[in-house]
Amino acid sequence: MSDDYRPMWQQLGLDLEAHDALLEVLGQGYQEVFLSQKNRPEGMAYFDFVMSEVHGLRIKELLEEKSAGRKIVGSYCVFVPEEIVLAANATLVGLCSGADFATEEVERLLPRNTCALIKSSFGFKIGKVCPYLESADMIVGENTCDGKKKAYESLAGLVDNLYVMDLPQVKSENGRALLKDEYLRFKTAIEKLTGATITADTLKAAIRTVNAKRAAIHRLSLLRKADPAPISGLDALLANQVFFYDNPARFTDAVNKICDELETRIAAKTGAMAAGTPRILVSGCPQAVPNWKLPMIVEDAGAVIVGEESCVGERGTRNLTDESVTTVEEMIDAIVDRYFKVDCAIFTPNPDRLGHIQQMVAETQADGVIHYGLQFCQPYLMESIPVEKSLEDKQIPCLRIETDYSMEDVGQLKTRVDAFVEQLK
Amino acid sequence: MSDDYRPMWQQLGLDLEAHDALLEVLGQGYQEVFLSQKNRPEGMAYFDFVMSEVHGLRIKELLEEKSAGRKIVGSYCVFVPEEIVLAANATLVGLCSGADFATEEVERLLPRNTCALIKSSFGFKIGKVCPYLESADMIVGENTCDGKKKAYESLAGLVDNLYVMDLPQVKSENGRALLKDEYLRFKTAIEKLTGATITADTLKAAIRTVNAKRAAIHRLSLLRKADPAPISGLDALLANQVFFYDNPARFTDAVNKICDELETRIAAKTGAMAAGTPRILVSGCPQAVPNWKLPMIVEDAGAVIVGEESCVGERGTRNLTDESVTTVEEMIDAIVDRYFKVDCAIFTPNPDRLGHIQQMVAETQADGVIHYGLQFCQPYLMESIPVEKSLEDKQIPCLRIETDYSMEDVGQLKTRVDAFVEQLK
Repeated sequence: MSDDYRPMWQQLGLDLEAHDALLEVLGQGYQEVFLSQKNRPEGMAYFDFVMSEVHGLRIKELLEEKSAGRKIVGSYCVFVPEEIVLAANATLVGLCSGADFATEEVERLLPRNTCALIKSSFGFKIGKVCPYLESADMIVGENTCDGKKKAYESLAGLVDNLYVMDLPQVKSENGRALLKDEYLRFKTAIEKLTGATITADTLKAAIRTVNAKRAAIHRLSLLRKADPAPISGLDALLANQVFFYDNPARFTDAVNKICDELETRIAAKTGAMAAGTPRILVSGCPQAVPNWKLPMIVEDAGAVIVGEESCVGERGTRNLTDESVTTVEEMIDAIVDRYFKVDCAIFTPNPDRLGHIQQMVAETQADGVIHYGLQFCQPYLMESIPVEKSLEDKQIPCLRIETDYSMEDVGQLKTRVDAFVEQLK
Repeated sequence: MSDDYRPMWQQLGLDLEAHDALLEVLGQGYQEVFLSQKNRPEGMAYFDFVMSEVHGLRIKELLEEKSAGRKIVGSYCVFVPEEIVLAANATLVGLCSGADFATEEVERLLPRNTCALIKSSFGFKIGKVCPYLESADMIVGENTCDGKKKAYESLAGLVDNLYVMDLPQVKSENGRALLKDEYLRFKTAIEKLTGATITADTLKAAIRTVNAKRAAIHRLSLLRKADPAPISGLDALLANQVFFYDNPARFTDAVNKICDELETRIAAKTGAMAAGTPRILVSGCPQAVPNWKLPMIVEDAGAVIVGEESCVGERGTRNLTDESVTTVEEMIDAIVDRYFKVDCAIFTPNPDRLGHIQQMVAETQADGVIHYGLQFCQPYLMESIPVEKSLEDKQIPCLRIETDYSMEDVGQLKTRVDAFVEQLK
């Protein structure tokens, strides 16, 4: 990192020793996984820089925003509407997860059989190694899966600024009404936090900002359909991960810039991998920084990942909010409509997701699908069985993976992924 | 069994060979676990008879009801309102679970890491060994936990009469409104199924019938506070299990009769176990027939179970529906109020349950609590940690057990339970 951020981290209450260790592992991992790749787009330099400063410059920016009176809102889920946060002149950031930390202490608060993502979020708090969490003026939880829903009850004992949003389980009229009520309640809470009143102008501007960010990353997603794939799955995943941390306008520009470059590469038939490389769609649980285990194994095996049907990916970003309406009330409805389309496995039934996976397979010209399930993530593990069946019914090969953040099963996963990739050749 | 029910079972489509094997294991288990107990109340003879005829006479009765035009509704959860079913001249029965069956085939439809209760319900269907399920005109699922919610999507492929009820996750105004809407939707569905219209008279009568049943089993629960305990935990659990199968009026009479006997025993200081026996409250997941593993181990260890804080127990039965109202609309509200009090771990937050456990400890004079968690049941396993903490804060010993329906861990459980009971002496 370019500056000495240690005083800043100390001020945030981080455990400097543990945090140093984390950054060292993260830096090494990034070097080995990302910087060692060949034929990367030049535009990835931006994301390399962002990642090198992920706990540094970005945190400094957030703290400067805070000094200027702006509030920081942290979240763990794509159901937290960034439009409402931005419209109240606050900043939304994704909170740390994606790596095991302080596991022994976490398992005093959560059962061992809890998914790695939830345990990780506790580990980053207990281990005092997430500067985003410590910078946040409000932490937003949400009743998605049982694991998170019940975990927030314990998280409430670890932080003093937790706000929990209820969510529907069914896409019924009642379900939509609940989502709307909860977004209105959230709007009130955010207005109270910031002291700002959300107006038609600020909300419209916020919708445009978030739509632009989503449109850019969706543009990137669509460019991956080319053969040779112009960008590796690892790099594209990274852009999707940075989506949750970066300044929205700057992120949008960086993604559009890389998209311009990818278009040039596609025209020149320049790929991150050779033409004819087996193409894989990854579908399932979100992969948060620094959880790069599966894509690393897949691309090491000689395949290229051409899409993520995931909350860190197309599931979270593909839908835009209608910009044609004018009043706050209409815009809230448009926002509700937009988020209500997210086909998370918490919904029952959830046929849209099966359709979206098949659509992505067709659009990205994927040869096969790897379903990525975090161990003990009941909604996605349960849905992985009908996903596999629906793909097999269409003669699309599918490999169901169930794993966590540890490296213990890498050998076993490599064997299974190698065999799967071989089958696609 | 007193009659030859094989033609009846065959007509229901049961797998006779598998069903014979199940009944044999069940009969043997019942003999060893229940009939070998000493100092049982005479009134248990009724429940012994019911259990000996659980797939026989009771099914014959249900089929006779069906022949007379009455509909049978099967359910897996205490949130399905029996009052509404009875008021439409239909019968509600609990569906089979509590034992592993057809596990290999089940695990083609559900992840291995699914709780035993859900797997079991699939096993009984796939194995064709649940005459209740095969007799049912409607099977009611409910969006309680993630496991059940997503499993019903697969169950819908195995049966053609599944109805799924949505449930709230929060005890908010919206949560109550959703429950009411869903009970009204259910009322309409039941009326359509039966062709009957629910009137104030039929609903009032149904509420009284169900209240009487609950009052009787709650009376039994309260009598267990005596020392010596007048009834074993196994026998009391059995009565709570039969609650879900039996004819309501007959069940109420039988329970009240045994309560009369227990009062006599209490006056005479006659116990199922000796005075001073360590007293244990079991709290947590439901124990369905024939899942008697934990109480068998506990009472074999020289303790007596004096209460079940469980859906098969006080959580499911303690609250009555207000009988003082007169219109259907008011009665529906009273029913909603009644069920909304059920403190299932699916709700967030769920402080009432912690209070109820402590209340039961005090009322039953329990020396300690065993938290019974089914492996992979996230809501109860996650809540077991704050439950344990809240008990330890009051110096009430607590043992957290996580198990399934297999007998593989019996040795290990015995060791832990023995040590726990020893600590209570």
